Amino acid sequence: MSLFVMKFGGSSVGDTERMQRVAKRIAEKKEEGHQCVVVVSAMGDTTDDLIDSAKRLSDHLPAREMDMLMTTGEQISISLLSIAIQAIGHEAVSFTGWQAGFETEANHGSARILNIRPDRVIKALDAGKIVIVAGFQGMSEDGEITTLGRGGSDTTAVALAAAIKADACEIYTDVDGIYSTDPRIVKCARKLPSISYDEMLELANLGAAVLHPRAVEYAKHNSVRLIVRSSFTYNEGTVVEEESSMEQGVVVSGIAYDKNVARISILGVSDVPGVLAGIFGALAAERVDVDIIVQSGSQDGKADFSFTVNGAEAERALSVIESTRERVSYRELTSETDLVKVSIVGAGMVSHPGVAAEMFRVISDQGVSIKMVSTSEIKVSCVIEGEKVKDIIAALHTAYNLDTQEQAFVGGPQDRR
Amino acid sequence: MSLFVMKFGGSSVGDTERMQRVAKRIAEKKEEGHQCVVVVSAMGDTTDDLIDSAKRLSDHLPAREMDMLMTTGEQISISLLSIAIQAIGHEAVSFTGWQAGFETEANHGSARILNIRPDRVIKALDAGKIVIVAGFQGMSEDGEITTLGRGGSDTTAVALAAAIKADACEIYTDVDGIYSTDPRIVKCARKLPSISYDEMLELANLGAAVLHPRAVEYAKHNSVRLIVRSSFTYNEGTVVEEESSMEQGVVVSGIAYDKNVARISILGVSDVPGVLAGIFGALAAERVDVDIIVQSGSQDGKADFSFTVNGAEAERALSVIESTRERVSYRELTSETDLVKVSIVGAGMVSHPGVAAEMFRVISDQGVSIKMVSTSEIKVSCVIEGEKVKDIIAALHTAYNLDTQEQAFVGGPQDRR
Repeated sequence: MSLFVMKFGGSSVGDTERMQRVAKRIAEKKEEGHQCVVVVSAMGDTTDDLIDSAKRLSDHLPAREMDMLMTTGEQISISLLSIAIQAIGHEAVSFTGWQAGFETEANHGSARILNIRPDRVIKALDAGKIVIVAGFQGMSEDGEITTLGRGGSDTTAVALAAAIKADACEIYTDVDGIYSTDPRIVKCARKLPSISYDEMLELANLGAAVLHPRAVEYAKHNSVRLIVRSSFTYNEGTVVEEESSMEQGVVVSGIAYDKNVARISILGVSDVPGVLAGIFGALAAERVDVDIIVQSGSQDGKADFSFTVNGAEAERALSVIESTRERVSYRELTSETDLVKVSIVGAGMVSHPGVAAEMFRVISDQGVSIKMVSTSEIKVSCVIEGEKVKDIIAALHTAYNLDTQEQAFVGGPQDRR
Repeated sequence: MSLFVMKFGGSSVGDTERMQRVAKRIAEKKEEGHQCVVVVSAMGDTTDDLIDSAKRLSDHLPAREMDMLMTTGEQISISLLSIAIQAIGHEAVSFTGWQAGFETEANHGSARILNIRPDRVIKALDAGKIVIVAGFQGMSEDGEITTLGRGGSDTTAVALAAAIKADACEIYTDVDGIYSTDPRIVKCARKLPSISYDEMLELANLGAAVLHPRAVEYAKHNSVRLIVRSSFTYNEGTVVEEESSMEQGVVVSGIAYDKNVARISILGVSDVPGVLAGIFGALAAERVDVDIIVQSGSQDGKADFSFTVNGAEAERALSVIESTRERVSYRELTSETDLVKVSIVGAGMVSHPGVAAEMFRVISDQGVSIKMVSTSEIKVSCVIEGEKVKDIIAALHTAYNLDTQEQAFVGGPQDRR
């Protein structure tokens, strides 16, 4: 008997039929002799509908009341899922975030989990019940209902798995695992049987929207075994765990890309202390999310540097920088949009020199010039023009031996029934 | 400065526009310098929609999960109303039942309130905020979310008014007060400026569906001043309070009627101890709601008796009684449907003999025979055939001096703006 936390997203419980399918899936796990705690998101468009209602009433959406409003979405899901499970003959009980013991900061809209007291969850499990917990929500010390913000339900699942010492936390989603790259771009992309937390973190941050980075970090910190799998098939998913059990000899595990990147360059900046802090402090204050920052060598007391933001935020970023001109003197401000960031990720990189050079060669072979480079221990990112990105990703996929013919080696999709 | 509890039902907040109108109404009260606590029900059809979703998943609706599900309706209302109020420039804060301190029995679906600890409500009022509380819900000692069942939001409002010692509890509804009888039947029905708790209780039980009897009882027990008024007009409503402030000299305050009554008669019942308990115990066990019970004198050890039930339950009542035949011997079982119960209600009756006789005379003048009579200190009910009921109600209305010409005496509707 193992103890599983199973997390189902909003699209998995989008309507009555899907809800029943999820109920059946959970019942099967239970019938295999396991203990099940289920974390579920709001059904389909519920959250968006609730936000729309609020917007019809006000231009300003107060965070506390929005949390009060939005948490009803998950409360509806958990009660209906419990009813659906009971309808097929299993005992089930649903808990809101506060009932499941999620204590959070008071920071409405994106509260962090401070502590979990899962007494009621454990008691219900001990009584043989399937326990269903509302994702995305908790309660502050003052008894206020809070939400965890983006990726909240993934984080709920992982945190609960850590708190009740579950054997694994299964994230059910609409893809059947983590792929070496986007299968819509590279047909021979292969599903990874396993991946390390750090690789997953890089991939999650880099636009592979399957698992929220916050949840991955939580899982890494608490050594929670994560499994990403499909809620529609019985294929084996991808296990996210410590590197020890990783497949050997693989240098690059996956290739991620991020479309709609804008590069902003500030040229001839007076190289005095505090200048960088001034510029990026102003951007942070306006909540412009800056990704890569590159400074090129200073000369005559003047420096050039560039950074990337999401294309949608480029205009705003430019006007923020212009507004700092009184404090920060620079010669020129330029920007370039419709760029793409392509990244190779792999824990094996650390011990394999020349991995970045290979990437630069592949890109250059396509006649594309690299505009920015950023590296970490397990990642190399290049910002390039968007035009040839599909060819480049495919070429990288081949160059790093990721194409599907390798599947025999790593074990491919396998239909259990 | 007075402290008001204002209760708005589901139809008052049925859509965005109505929600905004209610917000404005509350803001006006606040701007007059009063403290406001608002109790609100689920929007329009929300509760029915939630029940429908559950029914699509299961034939059996587990009470605990249904409470979890249904309470989201009010949680949506309170947050949206708070947002609407904030949008027009007032500070507001919403509380769920448990946040407002409603402690109830664990009896899901119809939990009684055990205690209220309104600390957070009072604290928010002291901070100058408009407080919005979810009607119909509470929390059991075990931390389970419960609902109060029928009339729950009225009861929430009254109980909260008692707990925070409000100056009045205003029930906003789609009629502008309690009328001497149904204005759809008697054109000159008049709105009562005030009415006693006991009279209101009789009227509430007798089919004037404006205020739930449970809420009236709670108000009586805790001396909460109730005001029934319209959420659409600024007309003065009807005050429900102790008799002391009642208008003098009025014997009958109102005339109620209940359509679709069935009479069931059991003739020649062996008059042994426990027979009545056997029959009515069986009916209660099957949840058949029995209203009037009349036993006529016993003779030769045999008694006849009759009782009324709602017409829709007549068949079921008959089969329950037939099923008791092994234990209860009787000669004959008969029933009659499509009857109407007409009732006159008035606290003044106690000190005015002959009130019932007058009622009998009016009915007999219409050539209608009375099938059953039931009386209490402040009420006389007659069960009659339904055909001439409108004429009889109109005639009673005139006989007891309730027609609108009396309005000059008691003060009629008055438009405040």
